[in-house]
Amino acid sequence: MTTSLADRPCVACRKGTPKLDPDAIAALLPQVPGWQLLHEPDRVEREWKFPDFAEAFALVDRIAELAEAADHHPDIGFGWGYVRVSLHTHAAGGLHENDFILAARIG
Amino acid sequence: MTTSLADRPCVACRKGTPKLDPDAIAALLPQVPGWQLLHEPDRVEREWKFPDFAEAFALVDRIAELAEAADHHPDIGFGWGYVRVSLHTHAAGGLHENDFILAARIG
Repeated sequence: MTTSLADRPCVACRKGTPKLDPDAIAALLPQVPGWQLLHEPDRVEREWKFPDFAEAFALVDRIAELAEAADHHPDIGFGWGYVRVSLHTHAAGGLHENDFILAARIG
Repeated sequence: MTTSLADRPCVACRKGTPKLDPDAIAALLPQVPGWQLLHEPDRVEREWKFPDFAEAFALVDRIAELAEAADHHPDIGFGWGYVRVSLHTHAAGGLHENDFILAARIG
């Protein structure tokens, strides 16, 4: 029985942690539907639309809590009616499994 | 006796609300030290640096509350160690006094 991505623990990353190669990324990406792969650096991003500011901020607040719990922190842009989240691992210079774990938890 | 910018009420904006002209902007900008004027569209922005994610999010949380209270909503970008805020008035296609009022309240 495999553990779902969202249930895996984030591991501590240090400078020089290897980034995921394209095959590993291709295997993980289908497990985080809605997230889009972008490059330079490799990262995954997702955008949500909302009818007002309060609902957008409610998602931001939830993501901030998940980020602190995982000790892994996305870049977040938001305002009236939208939230954009970008995940990559600075220490690896690209994507790490932690990014997919946090993406899965965010949903 | 003049009312300080932060204590003025934000007024409701409708599509077609006139944007501030360069002279009006030049008069208000010194009242919001730390905020930078940018163009296309006219907007004011400020960035803060922090030693971690929690302190950055604490500022975001405070700004979200001020934005809801003023019913005027900035675009906010943040992550580990930083917050960037951009204010402009969509309905005016540029800057409105509301932007300077909210900038003054944010600090």
